[in-house]
Amino acid sequence: MLNVRILGTGTALPPRVVTTAAVAAAIGRDADHLRARTGIDERRWMDRDARVTDLAADALRAALARADRPATALRRVIFVTSCGGDDLFPANGNRVLDALGIEGGCDAFDLNNACLGFVSGLDLAARCVATGLGPVGVVVIDNPSWFIDPSNPRPYAVFGDAAAAAVVGAGGPDEGVVGVHLANVGGARGTARLSNAVPGCPAPMIEFEASSEALTALATQLIRDASATVLAAAGLSLDDVRWVAPHQPNGAMLDVIVQALGLPPSKLVRVVDRIGSVGAASIGVGLDRILRERPVAAGDHILLVGVGAGVSSGALLYRVGA
Amino acid sequence: MLNVRILGTGTALPPRVVTTAAVAAAIGRDADHLRARTGIDERRWMDRDARVTDLAADALRAALARADRPATALRRVIFVTSCGGDDLFPANGNRVLDALGIEGGCDAFDLNNACLGFVSGLDLAARCVATGLGPVGVVVIDNPSWFIDPSNPRPYAVFGDAAAAAVVGAGGPDEGVVGVHLANVGGARGTARLSNAVPGCPAPMIEFEASSEALTALATQLIRDASATVLAAAGLSLDDVRWVAPHQPNGAMLDVIVQALGLPPSKLVRVVDRIGSVGAASIGVGLDRILRERPVAAGDHILLVGVGAGVSSGALLYRVGA
Repeated sequence: MLNVRILGTGTALPPRVVTTAAVAAAIGRDADHLRARTGIDERRWMDRDARVTDLAADALRAALARADRPATALRRVIFVTSCGGDDLFPANGNRVLDALGIEGGCDAFDLNNACLGFVSGLDLAARCVATGLGPVGVVVIDNPSWFIDPSNPRPYAVFGDAAAAAVVGAGGPDEGVVGVHLANVGGARGTARLSNAVPGCPAPMIEFEASSEALTALATQLIRDASATVLAAAGLSLDDVRWVAPHQPNGAMLDVIVQALGLPPSKLVRVVDRIGSVGAASIGVGLDRILRERPVAAGDHILLVGVGAGVSSGALLYRVGA
Repeated sequence: MLNVRILGTGTALPPRVVTTAAVAAAIGRDADHLRARTGIDERRWMDRDARVTDLAADALRAALARADRPATALRRVIFVTSCGGDDLFPANGNRVLDALGIEGGCDAFDLNNACLGFVSGLDLAARCVATGLGPVGVVVIDNPSWFIDPSNPRPYAVFGDAAAAAVVGAGGPDEGVVGVHLANVGGARGTARLSNAVPGCPAPMIEFEASSEALTALATQLIRDASATVLAAAGLSLDDVRWVAPHQPNGAMLDVIVQALGLPPSKLVRVVDRIGSVGAASIGVGLDRILRERPVAAGDHILLVGVGAGVSSGALLYRVGA
């Protein structure tokens, strides 16, 4: 066990609400049908002239407030995105430090592992703290709305923008990351893609490369496997897990995942209906909602589990301290 | 000290050599003058239809061969770039796993900290290994040549493409990362930038945002500070350091840095004259050349030190084991 504590979490959403009725109108679909099919009622879209790093800084600020720590306490900021942020370089984390008034004693870098990036970031944060470097801020933001349009209805129908953050510090002997299992299986299997822009070529947009059915089957299998692996290593079963923050790619896929895991709905906070498919931010927002809104108690186990393009998959099991 | 061992390193360069004479002709400069001013004789440029991740995989393959480990021994691959790679998502590390035939038991993610990314990656690799997850492959590639053209002569004159890699595993009690100091100071100070592409806007290119003189002064100061911080924490002086792999942004800046540190040229391998300014790959290539071509011995200290857009700066001190 890596003895760390999640000192605080936060969420930041862009102000602009886009209803599924508006999305349905743009792609010529029936609103009720689209709501039923996606399990999404509304999502938030960032304005194109907003800065990705500003919304990320808001989420990290909220997490620091919950942690009751000043920004200057941070020794490292891990900025997670799968949409590139404001700049490819400098790393986006620099602007977050700047927005928080951190002017020394802290480093930053950007991390990307598609929809699993927040879990990768938490894993790293725990390893940093366990080796003496902390507290660490993990801030995740995805703004897929900038890379979709009605000409490709499948991504247009589901994506939303969101940011979330966690501050990770040293924990006592009875708390922390009980186990983690992360795996990537190579680029051969097409899932979803946002290519990097090459000067002289058309700007890329998000593409789904597999059917909904294939993606759902793959996600369900990988999430089940990752959960089983982490729980087996810890000598626990899913019944021992009080809270689950699964990746929520859309409402229909979430239903299949919840059913496949045999999860009582009371163990998770459903967020996808109000924010859509928010990429790497999904698990971060879900974790934040559990910690803020549910009666989380010492000794509780929280399971973060997800899957992302790549294909990446994994689970992280966290035990809450006293 | 994090007890780890750099099991092997490698470098991969694209085949196409571009001489400074050719670059000078494209921007209407005198070739001898440009060679003298940049300290660069030639560089390699990747073809636009090549895959970034293929060259990265070549570098990691070379590092694994030097480490005498199969690719399947890796538990994690950290893919470092500041140019975005082939895709924003899936993470580029997935394609590297695929190229190396790794189909399970290993995860991957992408990391970006501008020119300091390889040092950030090594720091994380050491923390992963020290907390039980290893060996870890760190592979760095930058392909800035795709984001420059003769209309902006300063970046066009210096940038080249390269990949490097290191495999990090468990070390004995007398070896490993003695100390590391990494810091970012926010986005307010303009240095160099490659913006993320937004659909509907012109594709971005690399821009320098400060004069050569300002960049040289900043880099020299930060490299001196980072070196001093790491060495002081270890109770060592630069005289105790046998080998240094500094960031080599161009030949003239390297000369100033070497002079400011009071470094005997025998402590480093100069690579910038043959490969140009290769971004985050610079320190990786320099480290690989030291380990392959110099009489590195047990007990030697190797200092990696650099600066990048952000502004990021830092140093990592490594002690070679028996």
